Amino acid sequence: MNIFHIEKPDENLRPTIVDKINNLTKPKGSLGRLEEIAMQIALIQQTLTPALHKPQNIIFAADHGIVDEGVSLSPKEVTRQQLSNFLHGGAGVNFLCRQHGFELKIVDAGVDYDLPYEKGIIDMKVRRGTRNYLYEAAMTQEEMDLCIERGAEMVRRCHEEGSNVLSFGEMGIGNTSSSSLWMTCFTGIPLKQCVGAGSGLNQQGIRHKYEVLKRSMEHYNGDGSAIDIIRYFGGLEMVMAVGAMLQAAELKMLILVDGFIMTNCMLAAMQLYPAVKDYAIFCHCGDESGHKLILEYMQVKPLINLGLRLGEGTGAICAYPLVDSAVRMINEMDNFTHASITKYF
Amino acid sequence: MNIFHIEKPDENLRPTIVDKINNLTKPKGSLGRLEEIAMQIALIQQTLTPALHKPQNIIFAADHGIVDEGVSLSPKEVTRQQLSNFLHGGAGVNFLCRQHGFELKIVDAGVDYDLPYEKGIIDMKVRRGTRNYLYEAAMTQEEMDLCIERGAEMVRRCHEEGSNVLSFGEMGIGNTSSSSLWMTCFTGIPLKQCVGAGSGLNQQGIRHKYEVLKRSMEHYNGDGSAIDIIRYFGGLEMVMAVGAMLQAAELKMLILVDGFIMTNCMLAAMQLYPAVKDYAIFCHCGDESGHKLILEYMQVKPLINLGLRLGEGTGAICAYPLVDSAVRMINEMDNFTHASITKYF
Repeated sequence: MNIFHIEKPDENLRPTIVDKINNLTKPKGSLGRLEEIAMQIALIQQTLTPALHKPQNIIFAADHGIVDEGVSLSPKEVTRQQLSNFLHGGAGVNFLCRQHGFELKIVDAGVDYDLPYEKGIIDMKVRRGTRNYLYEAAMTQEEMDLCIERGAEMVRRCHEEGSNVLSFGEMGIGNTSSSSLWMTCFTGIPLKQCVGAGSGLNQQGIRHKYEVLKRSMEHYNGDGSAIDIIRYFGGLEMVMAVGAMLQAAELKMLILVDGFIMTNCMLAAMQLYPAVKDYAIFCHCGDESGHKLILEYMQVKPLINLGLRLGEGTGAICAYPLVDSAVRMINEMDNFTHASITKYF
Repeated sequence: MNIFHIEKPDENLRPTIVDKINNLTKPKGSLGRLEEIAMQIALIQQTLTPALHKPQNIIFAADHGIVDEGVSLSPKEVTRQQLSNFLHGGAGVNFLCRQHGFELKIVDAGVDYDLPYEKGIIDMKVRRGTRNYLYEAAMTQEEMDLCIERGAEMVRRCHEEGSNVLSFGEMGIGNTSSSSLWMTCFTGIPLKQCVGAGSGLNQQGIRHKYEVLKRSMEHYNGDGSAIDIIRYFGGLEMVMAVGAMLQAAELKMLILVDGFIMTNCMLAAMQLYPAVKDYAIFCHCGDESGHKLILEYMQVKPLINLGLRLGEGTGAICAYPLVDSAVRMINEMDNFTHASITKYF
């Protein structure tokens, strides 16, 4: 497997950044989370004048063998239909990318369909969907390594194109199931609390999904290591996102974390390299049951909570203007001395 | 006093809007609050293709007689110093206006200083600060009427300029005190829970502020009507904002509600014309103690909660891209039939 060199941001600059933020023309602390985000980005970029360049959203797409067990309301074909929708610009992610100036990259990590690559989908297919982890590991060690490497490769491309901030999205019918399994394994939170409605299951559907996932865990006979859990229960698009996040952190890029699935990918990445978390901005708490719990477990506060549960990176892109506001705050606000305002604290 | 004609939006179009939103290419309800906001705006504008035109932020500024009692950490001169900062573009509100394409109007509702109107501050001064309501009513009936009328006048100007969405901000050292008094009087929530730190009081400062406000309430000998409470404890900038909100609702414009003070202005406006609430989007829950309580009392969910407590309209403008996202969603997303996607619910 790829080795990443991920360093925690150097803390030496912190007091200087604190001074700058506290001297902006506002009561101390009165821009709340914007001040925290500005601090995080300034530390990552090691500068008092941070900047966001060429934001991109990479959607990793793949199918899941477990869908054969009826764990999702949506049929598998929706994965490739939605990819076509992304190409034509009519999906949720598209209007948000247009609104906030994101370039959209659509990556086939493992869709079970022959996609029209000539139209702009990027071919990183590792296999046509995962195996059904009710019976066997979702992927081999080699397939997992390939996912990690190809995710990292996508991020290196963006970096070469001049990006320093990325959000990651996913499209993969069945991937809340994989996410719930990663979550319970990595956090110890009981499976029941990790399983939710996905694209819209009712109570009976959720119960069935839970039973299938419970049996999958009972059949699991691996070594219980993080890497083995990632491989056994993962989705190809999810492991590719893990590789992408790790590469982004190594390159000191900002990672905008989207919904339930991407939060689980960040959790998985943290099992391998804990310092990846310092590069992550948790953008959104979605409506999928379990998302709030996992964010609490990770001791992070998402920027917004709008009850989204669409994936694709939509929650992260929605929150982007707030990240942008934080950067503008530290760069554009005047300070008390220059503006001749009585500093009142 | 001005009479406003504020109608609740016609509900007949609702089922048609619901149909449109439910046929967009996403699991039903999966864009959460964006779907609710899109519905509200479509109903206000009575169209399936709502639009936001020329957003503006109007800051009403004024001074408060009660500041003589030491209820604020900031000295009174900060009000006029900040107005100068707004003019020069170095305040919190400025970078947000630039970021989201808001025009900024700065209105002197009653600053206790001779301001440089030639530089762009709009002269709507009713008097140089309110009277000290520890001893007497903050303003006369005539002054209150003038505030309402001038606030309405500002909104009519924006409407004539082509705006259909406005946020309102304030600058007025001492105005969390007025807000706390309106809040306790209109909601019945005990004063203690309505009083907070303002621009940064410590526990001792908050206790003193509470004592001053408690004595002010004890001295109050008016008739207890909403209009009398507004007049007796109000700020000139706050009453102007009330008039502005009422005029905006009459003109079927969208009102972006900012922080603790503007939420209290909306609460006051609702005492006079309850239907004004249908035109309001509650953008932000700030850090001022009491803001969460008043929002709960009004049974509204703010869009974001970033711990801001700056005023100026900053919370409302920060949240604006989410409102814009809602409008783009209903206009730009494809539907299941056209995109040839299996509808899975």
